[in-house]
Amino acid sequence: MTSNLTNVLKLIDRSHENALKRLFTFLKIPSVSTDPAYKKHCLSAAQWCKAELQDIGFKAQIKKTDGHPIVVAHDGSKIKGKPHVLFYGHYDVQPPEPLELWKTPPFEPHITTERRNGKVIIARGAEDNKGQLVTFLEAARAWKQVTGELPVGVSVMIEGEEECGSPSLPGFFKKHGKEIRADLALVCDTVQWDKDTPAITTMLRGLAGLEIIIHGPKRDLHSGLYGGPAANPIRILTKILAAMFDKNGKITIPGFYDGIKNPTAKQRRQWAELDLESKAFLSSVGLSSPAGESRYSAIEQLWSRPTLEMNGITGGYQGVGSKTIIPAQASVKISCRLVPGQNPKSVLKSLRQFVSAQVPEDCSVEFIGNHGSAAIGFDMNTQAMRQAAKALSEEWGKPAVMMGCGASIPIVTSFKDELGMDSLMVGFGVDDDRIHSPNEKYNLKSFKKGARSWARILEALAQS
Amino acid sequence: MTSNLTNVLKLIDRSHENALKRLFTFLKIPSVSTDPAYKKHCLSAAQWCKAELQDIGFKAQIKKTDGHPIVVAHDGSKIKGKPHVLFYGHYDVQPPEPLELWKTPPFEPHITTERRNGKVIIARGAEDNKGQLVTFLEAARAWKQVTGELPVGVSVMIEGEEECGSPSLPGFFKKHGKEIRADLALVCDTVQWDKDTPAITTMLRGLAGLEIIIHGPKRDLHSGLYGGPAANPIRILTKILAAMFDKNGKITIPGFYDGIKNPTAKQRRQWAELDLESKAFLSSVGLSSPAGESRYSAIEQLWSRPTLEMNGITGGYQGVGSKTIIPAQASVKISCRLVPGQNPKSVLKSLRQFVSAQVPEDCSVEFIGNHGSAAIGFDMNTQAMRQAAKALSEEWGKPAVMMGCGASIPIVTSFKDELGMDSLMVGFGVDDDRIHSPNEKYNLKSFKKGARSWARILEALAQS
Repeated sequence: MTSNLTNVLKLIDRSHENALKRLFTFLKIPSVSTDPAYKKHCLSAAQWCKAELQDIGFKAQIKKTDGHPIVVAHDGSKIKGKPHVLFYGHYDVQPPEPLELWKTPPFEPHITTERRNGKVIIARGAEDNKGQLVTFLEAARAWKQVTGELPVGVSVMIEGEEECGSPSLPGFFKKHGKEIRADLALVCDTVQWDKDTPAITTMLRGLAGLEIIIHGPKRDLHSGLYGGPAANPIRILTKILAAMFDKNGKITIPGFYDGIKNPTAKQRRQWAELDLESKAFLSSVGLSSPAGESRYSAIEQLWSRPTLEMNGITGGYQGVGSKTIIPAQASVKISCRLVPGQNPKSVLKSLRQFVSAQVPEDCSVEFIGNHGSAAIGFDMNTQAMRQAAKALSEEWGKPAVMMGCGASIPIVTSFKDELGMDSLMVGFGVDDDRIHSPNEKYNLKSFKKGARSWARILEALAQS
Repeated sequence: MTSNLTNVLKLIDRSHENALKRLFTFLKIPSVSTDPAYKKHCLSAAQWCKAELQDIGFKAQIKKTDGHPIVVAHDGSKIKGKPHVLFYGHYDVQPPEPLELWKTPPFEPHITTERRNGKVIIARGAEDNKGQLVTFLEAARAWKQVTGELPVGVSVMIEGEEECGSPSLPGFFKKHGKEIRADLALVCDTVQWDKDTPAITTMLRGLAGLEIIIHGPKRDLHSGLYGGPAANPIRILTKILAAMFDKNGKITIPGFYDGIKNPTAKQRRQWAELDLESKAFLSSVGLSSPAGESRYSAIEQLWSRPTLEMNGITGGYQGVGSKTIIPAQASVKISCRLVPGQNPKSVLKSLRQFVSAQVPEDCSVEFIGNHGSAAIGFDMNTQAMRQAAKALSEEWGKPAVMMGCGASIPIVTSFKDELGMDSLMVGFGVDDDRIHSPNEKYNLKSFKKGARSWARILEALAQS
């Protein structure tokens, strides 16, 4: 190990308390991007990122968009012959609801101890993505303090709409694509294989979603005075939703599975070796048996098979007690996880057609939203992949697992499609981080060793 | 017509403006019984009723219950050989939600003009049941002012839990049943055949309802990191709900239809003559074709066939935008309209069994609430029925229709079962009163002629 790296790692360890203080300031900003009510907080989060990057030594700017702004920064270091990387993160977070299930307020971060994970940071965004993003900033900060520069050329892009489909990205790429284009994107928004085993994610599922509203009577009706002859939108909606699956969990929407590229025999073998213990995986969230397509293993249901999930359903009386009405409408929010080969647009089209065909004459259907991003997979044998895997293994004392991921990171697809840029996905989350859920946490070990890991990866990428 | 009745009717006409003022004061009290947040307003409504009855000349009391109190009053008039009646009404109202659909605040009553109905009173409770209840109070007030007494012995009972299943009634009957027992109950909580044609309701559907909650993962899950293997409670719930109906609208729950007494051929003939124009009936609420059991006419679906309605469904993300989660639970509020012969307890038992049998191993089901009341039908040929029909026909200049009603009035069943007391159901609502819905209204014609009708009925009941 070079003396530079040794000193950088020592500095990261010494600066841990200050690094935590910086993260907590960031976590206190309720930057929920999907709900317009939080707009000004999203701006504050962007301003925090800009100030932080400038403090580290980057030239940072806030770029306006039609939605929440995007922070862009460049390091001065000009190192001839070294690669130039773009680090990507997002400052926005998921809504904290349901609030009543949080043991402590979602935007008042603090440290607590869990039997399984030791010390953890509790807050909305603790892992996704503020905690992960700060691991990289701390690595960069340490390199600049020790050597005055970074081992490779580094630019940074931090967006604020990752949790709501990144609607402003296309426009941003048109305007600033050249400025941010690099040899490789570093994306820190994924998990490790487990809390002690690092991983590089090489496959991501895509995402396509919309909201369906069934309109029936022109107003809520008294269920006694109209019940029988009057159509009930909840009944119509639930019938349509139930028809989307057969008894084996297969999705029945015509065309839904079109174009799917199945994993190679080699991938299947690797996954079989990984031997995801679905029982343990599910029991950690209070479940027991895989609920997906019965003819696929749990790891395939998660990494190489698409899903259709109902994320939220609403209709009629939502209050305390009972109200005997037939509601005027009922609605459902649906999102599909896509795998390589599926086209988000055609999947949503098939979904809309399937629903429209089943709406009775005197009711109507309305579709809201139409966001989608395709799945993606990277070659596991590039030099950068191998260098990063080696650096991770040295930090964690175990070989890094090359894994798939059931979640989507649309930006990785956009980097590939819009800028022809591959991504190296290294993250330090773990399955029980409760991201998108109440009491989200980030292991302190992930936060500490995450920063150390990035310090090592930055140096590793400089070797050629 | 006796000179007394003539003078009573004249006085009712002269007092109209004051009667409206009294009603508006009552309507301004937000006495929503199902939501504990409105408890103190329910008490104010009870106090208003007590004061009003005392002002008319009744001896009135507020009787405490485990829930909202019940107002009981007795008229001093002791008329030998005349029947003694109990007038029943309720001071509680349905929740006003959804508030955003009200054109004016629900508890700020006012008069406006509609093309179809002329002048109408707009407010939550304008019809159900405050407006209807006040028509009787105004009739009694006029009789007392003109003659110092009422043509028959009159007691009054006004409860505050009709809109939430009257949980306190059994206890109340045990304690005060003797005190309120009379020869006949007068219930003013039903509709006319149309805005110009009076009616007596002789059949009522029963009501049985509960809430079903499906519990899945122990917390909301990220739909990417768990989607596929993880069970989704919304999907499980919608599948169970869809299985409750076959393609002809028949309910598939085993035992649901057990014991049903079908209407007589004579009833069927009367209903055929009434010739409910289902097209017009449904188009008034934005629908077109009867959605109930396809082998029955619209009027049968409404009066003599049971229903199962989903009154409200909830699960997962309810906010703005999208949130890609698999929710920890999903729930539905269901109420069934019952017909003579069905047993509410067995219907609910069948429903619970049907649901429980379909909940997958690693999920669980919770049932909340278990309220029910059987359907009821009265002999159309009693003396009181004939006297009331005659009085109504004289006031409205048309024969009174003897009709069925799809809604439930559990109190009528309780009067019969607990106190062996028949009910005379005369109401002045019309189908488009929007009761239980935003912008509830009561036709001013119903309010005026309703009071006059009761004045006539009170005298008619005195003839024997």
